[in-house]
Amino acid sequence: MNAPLRTTVSELGELELLARILGRIGSPTEGDRWSGDDTAVLRWPHDRLLVTTDMMVQGIDFELTYATGADIGWKAVSINASDIAAMGACPTHAVAAVGLPPETELAFVDDLMDGIIEAASRYGVALVGGDLSAAREISIAIAMLGTAGEPILRTGARAGDAICVTGFLGGAAAGLVALRQGMPVAPPVDALMRRQLRPEARVEAGAVLAAIGPTAMIDLSDGLAVDLGHLLDPGDLGCEIEPGAIPIQPGIDAVDGLDPLETAVLGGEDFELLFTLDPAKVDQAASELSSQGVNMSQIGEVTAGEARLGERSLEEWRRKGWEHLRTP
Amino acid sequence: MNAPLRTTVSELGELELLARILGRIGSPTEGDRWSGDDTAVLRWPHDRLLVTTDMMVQGIDFELTYATGADIGWKAVSINASDIAAMGACPTHAVAAVGLPPETELAFVDDLMDGIIEAASRYGVALVGGDLSAAREISIAIAMLGTAGEPILRTGARAGDAICVTGFLGGAAAGLVALRQGMPVAPPVDALMRRQLRPEARVEAGAVLAAIGPTAMIDLSDGLAVDLGHLLDPGDLGCEIEPGAIPIQPGIDAVDGLDPLETAVLGGEDFELLFTLDPAKVDQAASELSSQGVNMSQIGEVTAGEARLGERSLEEWRRKGWEHLRTP
Repeated sequence: MNAPLRTTVSELGELELLARILGRIGSPTEGDRWSGDDTAVLRWPHDRLLVTTDMMVQGIDFELTYATGADIGWKAVSINASDIAAMGACPTHAVAAVGLPPETELAFVDDLMDGIIEAASRYGVALVGGDLSAAREISIAIAMLGTAGEPILRTGARAGDAICVTGFLGGAAAGLVALRQGMPVAPPVDALMRRQLRPEARVEAGAVLAAIGPTAMIDLSDGLAVDLGHLLDPGDLGCEIEPGAIPIQPGIDAVDGLDPLETAVLGGEDFELLFTLDPAKVDQAASELSSQGVNMSQIGEVTAGEARLGERSLEEWRRKGWEHLRTP
Repeated sequence: MNAPLRTTVSELGELELLARILGRIGSPTEGDRWSGDDTAVLRWPHDRLLVTTDMMVQGIDFELTYATGADIGWKAVSINASDIAAMGACPTHAVAAVGLPPETELAFVDDLMDGIIEAASRYGVALVGGDLSAAREISIAIAMLGTAGEPILRTGARAGDAICVTGFLGGAAAGLVALRQGMPVAPPVDALMRRQLRPEARVEAGAVLAAIGPTAMIDLSDGLAVDLGHLLDPGDLGCEIEPGAIPIQPGIDAVDGLDPLETAVLGGEDFELLFTLDPAKVDQAASELSSQGVNMSQIGEVTAGEARLGERSLEEWRRKGWEHLRTP
């Protein structure tokens, strides 16, 4: 445990590295067995099980020029927790498969584990196992389990439902541009960067909403224009979205070349919850979320017609997104 | 679905690729929801849940010079199923996170899915979700769930127990050397190559054994010398292994430079089951496994003394392994 932090993964060796990481994992709940065997063994006193997986890859989902190990670990856990939150469910356990180049410094691995453990603790998730592999690029694939009473699916929206969203949109995409441009970490841009590097999964908000009963729900990972489309699938539903009602993250106009509305509509990775709701329940949802400190906005309604956002169809917005904002 | 197979992943685009892959996944069991939502939703009528994850990375765990997409997909599922088998448990569901370089051809992705689906079907595992990411190297991280009555842990061996192993050892490591040397695919070497490329998880054998009650069990992924050490942890147990009793895979001596015994003791990835058992149960286990077509050998016994394999300590064997066989 006392290896200098500049020591690399290959100098330390796999067994020592594993021992170092396992030392960071908490003790299993009574009756469980977590790491140290062929699989984790969990008691499961629920009749339903949710499972999801999301992977982050160096050079695609993050760059070491702007993201620390702790940022990467935090985000890898949060994006999985966000998928569970979008079912109105409760995340419980996770396993992590990590690919590390042999020249990776121990300090980075410790930092990555810090971020994973910090986020797991934030969401009440137990990290119960994992796998380490050598690789040429850093990657982390987390699989997460959760429980739910009645999960809120993506399907179920009805014409006349209100379309609502938590929080503010566009911040994570703007933060990514600011990070890539190497902008100084100062207000208002630092808050955007934080939304990119340290997204918060809306787990508590998802649970509050599940009790109220949205007709459909999804988390905003690919951006409003794309993810709203999923709620309207298989295509017999449309929408009218009022651009002025979209809660745009403040400060986006401080980043060169970004239009705030376009960034809020097309930018991904905000991990806010987008949901459809009986209009009679909108005030209750806003009030209960507000008492949790979570902003909620009604941005439009589900229709039986075309899917429109302001002057454009959702399809036109999506095409614009592919041209403008998509990163390779 | 009609894109030419030389089309690349980036030419097709993520959404089309996902649709193509999702079209390959089976229909969910009644009451379940698999792909197509934020998470998979599974009914879970069991009070226990096993979960594990294992990752394979291009250039480390396989090379495209000798492994097809179907080989890689098959193996990624099998190595996870093997961890479940080593608990004497039944694999049930899996999620797969796949990293693909943009220039990957569609034919490769189809082939990878073939291998995943073939192996999942072989083990009775439902592929219920996944994630695709761009990457610079191909990687696949599978997380697998399973159920067990009383899982067989790695801990529990007692002095006097018989040490037994299924199948034959050293084949996968010898096959890897043969593949890297570019040896012709012909007997007896083709069988070794197959053990490297298409390992079989001992799921049925694990279930047969669980009913008989080994005191401890593990699957052989890192090689006999290393994995046997795990069964003797935390170190107050030893063993006497009889080299002549080790079931060496036939044909290893056809590969230049390989000593059959050393390869069987030090080579990894055979995914056979290694277990400790009340000596009074050895005949029953051998007979029941034999009726399943699975060979079983008693290779030694657990002692209260030193851990020895023939003339050497297990520790000396492991050191020899690090010097000789380890791949970067």
